[in-house]
Amino acid sequence: MQPLRMGMIGGGPGAFIGSIHRIAARIDGHITLVAGAFSSSYEKCVAMGTSLRINPERCYASYEQMITTEAQLPAHERIDFVSIVTPNHLHFAPAKLAMEHGFDVVLDKPATFTLQEAENLASVIQTTNRTFCLTHTYTGYPMVKQARQMIANGMFGTIRKVYLEYPQGWLSTFLESEANKQASWRTDSTKSGIAGSMGDIGTHAFNLAEYVSGLQVTALCSSLQIVVPGRLLDDDGAALLRFNNGATGVLMATQIAAGEENNVKVRVYGEKGGIEWQQQDANTLQVKWLDAPTQIYRTGTGYVGSYAQHNSRTPAGHPEGYLEAFANHYRNFALTVNAKRNGETPTPEMLDFPNINDGVRGMRFIERVVASSNAQEKWISF
Amino acid sequence: MQPLRMGMIGGGPGAFIGSIHRIAARIDGHITLVAGAFSSSYEKCVAMGTSLRINPERCYASYEQMITTEAQLPAHERIDFVSIVTPNHLHFAPAKLAMEHGFDVVLDKPATFTLQEAENLASVIQTTNRTFCLTHTYTGYPMVKQARQMIANGMFGTIRKVYLEYPQGWLSTFLESEANKQASWRTDSTKSGIAGSMGDIGTHAFNLAEYVSGLQVTALCSSLQIVVPGRLLDDDGAALLRFNNGATGVLMATQIAAGEENNVKVRVYGEKGGIEWQQQDANTLQVKWLDAPTQIYRTGTGYVGSYAQHNSRTPAGHPEGYLEAFANHYRNFALTVNAKRNGETPTPEMLDFPNINDGVRGMRFIERVVASSNAQEKWISF
Amino acid sequence: MQPLRMGMIGGGPGAFIGSIHRIAARIDGHITLVAGAFSSSYEKCVAMGTSLRINPERCYASYEQMITTEAQLPAHERIDFVSIVTPNHLHFAPAKLAMEHGFDVVLDKPATFTLQEAENLASVIQTTNRTFCLTHTYTGYPMVKQARQMIANGMFGTIRKVYLEYPQGWLSTFLESEANKQASWRTDSTKSGIAGSMGDIGTHAFNLAEYVSGLQVTALCSSLQIVVPGRLLDDDGAALLRFNNGATGVLMATQIAAGEENNVKVRVYGEKGGIEWQQQDANTLQVKWLDAPTQIYRTGTGYVGSYAQHNSRTPAGHPEGYLEAFANHYRNFALTVNAKRNGETPTPEMLDFPNINDGVRGMRFIERVVASSNAQEKWISF
Amino acid sequence: MQPLRMGMIGGGPGAFIGSIHRIAARIDGHITLVAGAFSSSYEKCVAMGTSLRINPERCYASYEQMITTEAQLPAHERIDFVSIVTPNHLHFAPAKLAMEHGFDVVLDKPATFTLQEAENLASVIQTTNRTFCLTHTYTGYPMVKQARQMIANGMFGTIRKVYLEYPQGWLSTFLESEANKQASWRTDSTKSGIAGSMGDIGTHAFNLAEYVSGLQVTALCSSLQIVVPGRLLDDDGAALLRFNNGATGVLMATQIAAGEENNVKVRVYGEKGGIEWQQQDANTLQVKWLDAPTQIYRTGTGYVGSYAQHNSRTPAGHPEGYLEAFANHYRNFALTVNAKRNGETPTPEMLDFPNINDGVRGMRFIERVVASSNAQEKWISF
Repeated sequence: MQPLRMGMIGGGPGAFIGSIHRIAARIDGHITLVAGAFSSSYEKCVAMGTSLRINPERCYASYEQMITTEAQLPAHERIDFVSIVTPNHLHFAPAKLAMEHGFDVVLDKPATFTLQEAENLASVIQTTNRTFCLTHTYTGYPMVKQARQMIANGMFGTIRKVYLEYPQGWLSTFLESEANKQASWRTDSTKSGIAGSMGDIGTHAFNLAEYVSGLQVTALCSSLQIVVPGRLLDDDGAALLRFNNGATGVLMATQIAAGEENNVKVRVYGEKGGIEWQQQDANTLQVKWLDAPTQIYRTGTGYVGSYAQHNSRTPAGHPEGYLEAFANHYRNFALTVNAKRNGETPTPEMLDFPNINDGVRGMRFIERVVASSNAQEKWISF
Repeated sequence: MQPLRMGMIGGGPGAFIGSIHRIAARIDGHITLVAGAFSSSYEKCVAMGTSLRINPERCYASYEQMITTEAQLPAHERIDFVSIVTPNHLHFAPAKLAMEHGFDVVLDKPATFTLQEAENLASVIQTTNRTFCLTHTYTGYPMVKQARQMIANGMFGTIRKVYLEYPQGWLSTFLESEANKQASWRTDSTKSGIAGSMGDIGTHAFNLAEYVSGLQVTALCSSLQIVVPGRLLDDDGAALLRFNNGATGVLMATQIAAGEENNVKVRVYGEKGGIEWQQQDANTLQVKWLDAPTQIYRTGTGYVGSYAQHNSRTPAGHPEGYLEAFANHYRNFALTVNAKRNGETPTPEMLDFPNINDGVRGMRFIERVVASSNAQEKWISF
Repeated sequence: MQPLRMGMIGGGPGAFIGSIHRIAARIDGHITLVAGAFSSSYEKCVAMGTSLRINPERCYASYEQMITTEAQLPAHERIDFVSIVTPNHLHFAPAKLAMEHGFDVVLDKPATFTLQEAENLASVIQTTNRTFCLTHTYTGYPMVKQARQMIANGMFGTIRKVYLEYPQGWLSTFLESEANKQASWRTDSTKSGIAGSMGDIGTHAFNLAEYVSGLQVTALCSSLQIVVPGRLLDDDGAALLRFNNGATGVLMATQIAAGEENNVKVRVYGEKGGIEWQQQDANTLQVKWLDAPTQIYRTGTGYVGSYAQHNSRTPAGHPEGYLEAFANHYRNFALTVNAKRNGETPTPEMLDFPNINDGVRGMRFIERVVASSNAQEKWISF
Repeated sequence: MQPLRMGMIGGGPGAFIGSIHRIAARIDGHITLVAGAFSSSYEKCVAMGTSLRINPERCYASYEQMITTEAQLPAHERIDFVSIVTPNHLHFAPAKLAMEHGFDVVLDKPATFTLQEAENLASVIQTTNRTFCLTHTYTGYPMVKQARQMIANGMFGTIRKVYLEYPQGWLSTFLESEANKQASWRTDSTKSGIAGSMGDIGTHAFNLAEYVSGLQVTALCSSLQIVVPGRLLDDDGAALLRFNNGATGVLMATQIAAGEENNVKVRVYGEKGGIEWQQQDANTLQVKWLDAPTQIYRTGTGYVGSYAQHNSRTPAGHPEGYLEAFANHYRNFALTVNAKRNGETPTPEMLDFPNINDGVRGMRFIERVVASSNAQEKWISF
């Protein structure tokens, strides 16, 4: 296939997630970055673009300019899609504009600033018939996909219990007072939305829960806290969950667990056994059984399923990590776009990247988990 | 010191916890089992006693008979204390009777059948001035004590977050239909009390939470479930917790996590760092810091504190386990009884075994966690 | 069964291994310590005996006195066996004398001071027809026995490779200059024999190698070193191994790996898969396969074999450790002695404790590994 | 910087390491693949090039043709360097030719087919003054570099012991009979050289040993075996090592440890402590101390040294893996080439990639380890 041409919105100097997106897009050679509206400062945008060896003419002062200008370029030259890596309040508008100009979209999570925006975005996607990918990184890991496939195949019987945890410690102090760019916008409701930690990492955990279990949350009971004095949005929380098949669960997300890094973990149990996966040992899936030894499934082996195989690049024992998981979403997005263009049907493995349904579910989770935390009654329906 | 003479109540053929108590009492050589009312069947009691090489004359038909008869024996011959290892509905009466006859008491957890009984037991203890030990096993581990000591010393600053989990899978099927003695009484409210899993293992997790953190739960919000069809008491549950210093927590206890063994785990985080301990790696304490490498504290080393040192028997790298943790409670109980008899003041390390305060707190936890699960409102005060 | 009466030789104040033997003998209630020649100082012996609540009349000034005096006591009163926990140079004489007086023997490893003594001891055992147990602790672990049983059953096909490692760090400094009792005799060739680390821990590794693999070493090539200046015996070494079926191996033993505790580890590979066990995770056996997920075998589960089952006391998830592994040897020794006395045939599981064959092999290993280290030629036959 | 233009030699359809090199070169955006002599079949070469979106005119029938043709292109268009990923017998000639035509070289390990070739290559490099990188992957890991830096800084005092192990299981069966391309050339002495496993993975372990410890091997004693019947080169082996400061070591490399993946591991101990690193937990470095808790150093944290920092792309808790480690060599090579072109002095961190000295040492290791295995005397000087 010809590489897709990417235009990036956001990801200027000092942005963490922008550089991650660029590496992820680059790893598999299916995508080339050719344009960008990296910053609200044109100067910074050009500086960034230059450092990335992008033609200065394709470094734009605004996303609107990029979208409208690129849309005028000849088909073989203009960008194929945009990657949007701005803070949450700047997700919806560029995504909408891009799709209305015929561009596919990769969007950083959570989908939008509000639930309403996410629902609107779903309409835009449907109307414009664009391909859309939401980068919930953790479902890009091969062994997360292996877990999902084994559960979907019924290997553990009916699912009964789902545990999610996402402990971080980096917001244990009042970092936002120190001009820390990452901390500042995430704790600012005008950029982040109504939730802090629950939007930043709780949505990842929620997405993992539904993706791996194949179930949907129907009710929740949560408690969010602001632990660090002076902070304006939740930096810690937990929720009890009910799923549509009667299973229950617990979701914990915190950014004030001092000493913790980023060790997101999911456990799902059915009647006959269960799975455990954690990012810190990402190439391993523990498969547990009621009356038999736990099995250690590993990436790159001959016995893993089609999804894990499709999403690995190396043989067993050659660890892949976060960047490759992230790249899997870009790769599957690109393969899907390419297949559609060629009039082919993408395989289920190609299509297995987070989409707007995940996006709307995630925004509803944010809305519900905040509502529950403020409520007196125990359970809030989803 | 002279070994203490022990009389056991319960622990007949097929009892799991009875044999654990006997090994735990035996390991350190401070206690000798000399009498027993092991079973409601006199025949079984004598058979058990014989297998344990106890004089048949001191195998009693009932605990009442044992207590009253032994009380008549000369001081240098009669039992020093009773160990009660019966199901929960048979905790209070023998404990009370024993203490009223001058015997000290070791009692399996949870303390009693009801909260009221636990409060009554506290009165009896105070009135009779007896030494009382409740066998919450997990606080007997050296590295759990190390965690408590480091937190109490303020090494992590103010505590902010407490996570407890206790996953088991052995009740994933309807075992109680198969004449499984362990499953049967634990799922029978006439023997176990108002809670199933929360009484059996939830109380252990709760005890660990308060012991390690040094805090007290002031409110909770719980959801308990009966997952296995036909079961009569909760086999799964979770609770959100609030502590008296403003910290919050999550407690998960389940017996239907198919494939899980008994890997109780506690994590506590303060402003500067935190600790993580799990039974599966019992001789290790992870000590985490905000801006420095995690440290791996280990039993038997020269750098651990006085509590961990006092509760280890072997040098570093020679793992001790569950039986030794259990034995630590018996040993500290025996050392305390001996010190008191000799008119000495027991050291803080000797006195560090679970007492009736833990027992009352645990029974209140059971009462409150069930009440919360049945309630519509979110938070129930403790 | 009636408990066996034990007399201990060695294990006076400050002795590490003596107290370990006493706990191990005590755990299962099959053995009672009733006599001792704990020290070459009669005063210390009585002090030790008193602290252990042994009748002072049975605290003896020498092992000769204990053996000859006890032999005069009535059968129902005198000791049944001796446990010898002295340094290596004091193994053979008391063991021989004890057996010649009709006592069975438990002996700390390595068997003797010299290979010749070990061979002589084998003759004494044969002549006197006594039961003899050598306490190579690590083969007492349930999962080590599970490994042996799986390999013996041919589950991995022909064995091809055996790796042993035993890293310790406690002799990284010149401890023997600091009146450290443990360090002093172990580094003194008049007490320890011709080898230091290889005798102390290398023999354990060697014993594990032959026990688990079911093979015998036929040749080796070694290099021993004295790393710490001033030391008189090897504190570090390694050997290449050849086995009787053509397999090869590597054995590493060191006491100068600063920061290491006592994490002995064995790996054995056959045509179809292999096993890995290490003491730090003693209740787990990793079972590896050529084309299938690694399995995590665990103690206390329903699927382990008869040897692992026989040597566990607790259900899955309740870790047992070093003391229980040690106790397994005492327990199996006691069960065997008891069965023989009752005219019964001990089961294979009872008989599975290290015997004089292991002792002679171990002493030959010491002799050969030292000879090879001094040799110019590469391979020395065993 | 402008991206360097790369021409690849080897790495045609079905080649494992070729695709790894391409990803590694691509990740950081400093290198663009623009030409290739991917296969001895021109047809396959063009097919490969096309799939990689390389201009068919720059897909060459031979490496000679590529080098000579590219050398004629204008400076701003022709390749900057070649990446050679052919089997070992095809390393020297293309590397020499490339350098003689002014191209820098990245070369897969081991350096060459024979030691003589490696020494010749060193001369060529010196004469042509080209930048040369040998891709010993494992020294590209940030925590391997952290280990080296801590040891070099003297944090552990004098180094005393070095353990290397590299267990694989993929050659446990006679794979080369099944037209397995990877197995075939590696077990064929006309392509691989005089060693099988020792050349393929033993050299990696050897390189790690010298890199991390900062020491040099001065003598060794080895035993290599052909375990799988029919195989023509060693598939298993081990060596005792002596280093230039008096330290000793053990190196184990095997490809017949059935069930093992690729878990290369290094341990180094000094007077005060030591380090342990294994690829399976690549983002962690265990730092051990004589009298203090083991520390868990992690990538992406604020406390790691300049080398680890320079070679990470993500914050703590976002695992990087094998591809990123590989990419670090390409990135540092590219940064060095770029700095030199700009007349700047590359930083020590940029220059920290394996060079021809490592290559010559590695080829000498192969030569010596085979010689020792065939020798009767124990030690062979290096």
